[in-house]
Amino acid sequence: MKIGLDVMGGDFAPKATIQGACLALSEISSSERIVLFGPEEVILEELNLAGTDPDNFIIVNCPEVLGMGEHPTKAIVHKPKSSIAIGFQMLKSGEIDSFSSAGNSGAMVVGSMYSVGTIQGIIRPCTSAIVPKENGTISILLDVGTITDAKPDVMYQFGILGSLYAEHIYKVPNPRVALLNLGTEEEKGNLQCQSSFALMKDSKDFNFIGNIEGRDILKDKADVIVCDGYTGNVVLKLMESVYRLLVKRGFNDDYIDRMNYENYGGTPLLGVNSTVIVGHGISNDIAIKNMILLSKEVHQVGLSTKIQKALQKFSLNNKE
Amino acid sequence: MKIGLDVMGGDFAPKATIQGACLALSEISSSERIVLFGPEEVILEELNLAGTDPDNFIIVNCPEVLGMGEHPTKAIVHKPKSSIAIGFQMLKSGEIDSFSSAGNSGAMVVGSMYSVGTIQGIIRPCTSAIVPKENGTISILLDVGTITDAKPDVMYQFGILGSLYAEHIYKVPNPRVALLNLGTEEEKGNLQCQSSFALMKDSKDFNFIGNIEGRDILKDKADVIVCDGYTGNVVLKLMESVYRLLVKRGFNDDYIDRMNYENYGGTPLLGVNSTVIVGHGISNDIAIKNMILLSKEVHQVGLSTKIQKALQKFSLNNKE
Repeated sequence: MKIGLDVMGGDFAPKATIQGACLALSEISSSERIVLFGPEEVILEELNLAGTDPDNFIIVNCPEVLGMGEHPTKAIVHKPKSSIAIGFQMLKSGEIDSFSSAGNSGAMVVGSMYSVGTIQGIIRPCTSAIVPKENGTISILLDVGTITDAKPDVMYQFGILGSLYAEHIYKVPNPRVALLNLGTEEEKGNLQCQSSFALMKDSKDFNFIGNIEGRDILKDKADVIVCDGYTGNVVLKLMESVYRLLVKRGFNDDYIDRMNYENYGGTPLLGVNSTVIVGHGISNDIAIKNMILLSKEVHQVGLSTKIQKALQKFSLNNKE
Repeated sequence: MKIGLDVMGGDFAPKATIQGACLALSEISSSERIVLFGPEEVILEELNLAGTDPDNFIIVNCPEVLGMGEHPTKAIVHKPKSSIAIGFQMLKSGEIDSFSSAGNSGAMVVGSMYSVGTIQGIIRPCTSAIVPKENGTISILLDVGTITDAKPDVMYQFGILGSLYAEHIYKVPNPRVALLNLGTEEEKGNLQCQSSFALMKDSKDFNFIGNIEGRDILKDKADVIVCDGYTGNVVLKLMESVYRLLVKRGFNDDYIDRMNYENYGGTPLLGVNSTVIVGHGISNDIAIKNMILLSKEVHQVGLSTKIQKALQKFSLNNKE
């Protein structure tokens, strides 16, 4: 397997990305190679500082650099020699099997859609977050910012995508899918929730268990929590700030440790025809290492193929 | 001042409400009387159990009881002798100066609108929550569940209402009003946020400082955080569950203490022509006591009059 990594992506790049790639070396097999995308001289310099032999990696020279604030579509068109542009070209051609970046997440979405493309039947690809639950297990929260205005059919597909992700990557059998709402009764919520509930309640595509409230997010009520990207983003960032605040105040235990985003290494872009991982902008070396390991896991499980198959079944169901 | 309290409102009523009323006695002056609304025999029995002389209170016999799950409008129409129905009649007639309940919050909103009514110019009354910030101060988050689908003009009014509440009750000078969003740039967010930002950005009615993200909620970036009731409800309930989880895990300090909802005693229904406080369903005696003290403060400051005046100015501004 060839694991692509954008060396220039993230607030602490290229130092954290190179250090993360070096950390990952000891956790991959000899048949797996990490492919580094970035300006060659920067990569060689950072590898030198890290004391690692460049031969441990495949290096693809990408002289242009994309900024975090650049407009995704324009950036990819105007910078065809950036790490994200070249990374996606090589993902499409099959020269690499996965591509990961903690950089411009908008460019990662646009790059995916214009290269490997969206899985047939998927309206919009999305991203997710891992929520550590009190009982030691996790939930998948989605979307977390890719789709801010999600129509009910898109919300429904979040249920499919989250369910397959929870089942195949986190080994949750028959994941319980819930809608994030402000009450548990069917008629509760805003128009979006009410319409989404109506679509989901008889779902044969996933195990819908109804509404859950904000107070249930950290409890073991659901394995997949569906909401629009605006709400998911607010929840995710609030939880991250709670984690940082607790650590700052000197609190720590096994549960608080599990709130640390570094453990999770980013999120696959769910619904595209390959393995694309979007990392957290503030990824440190540990987070980058975990992003690489996650991309390996997502590829080896064949998540995008499983989603493709589920969507074929879903399309047939729709025609009945 | 006559402070009305629904004895039958809340999950732990009537015990917690009566105990809370007894606790409040020592913190009000002799010119202030607490008026208890509920079935007389229940009130007398609980006062007896609490060892308090019934003459400390004014008791209004309300033989009917509203359930938490009952439909707000139907409940008030079909149960004219319930504590909420009679409480609002007496609030309208001026026999009491404020009315508070930790019971059916929908019935509190409907009861307010059909008795004292909405302040002229206010599109929809709303509720808020207190967010304890890291630096020791608080923010007002609104709406938190009353208006799940808030149009931009309603979101704009949340800015006015929250600003006046922060200024007059929490003594925050020139409160910084922010929009809760998934990024700080103007163009970020869902359609609702984008449209609301466009209305707010040149506001002369409050001090708009732009967008804040989920990670900023607990920081001292804003004094008033505006969002729709769906999002606010999710944030509020998530924070409450974080508090309970931390306490359960044995963590406590002055900051975590400040996350305890009991300290805040509920929220005024902002935008109605009187002082109406909606308490938390799970209010214990301390929360009820604080709800009574909050209703006293909100009445004495004359918050609804200040909102009326602001709305007159707001209306004039609109005509210019």
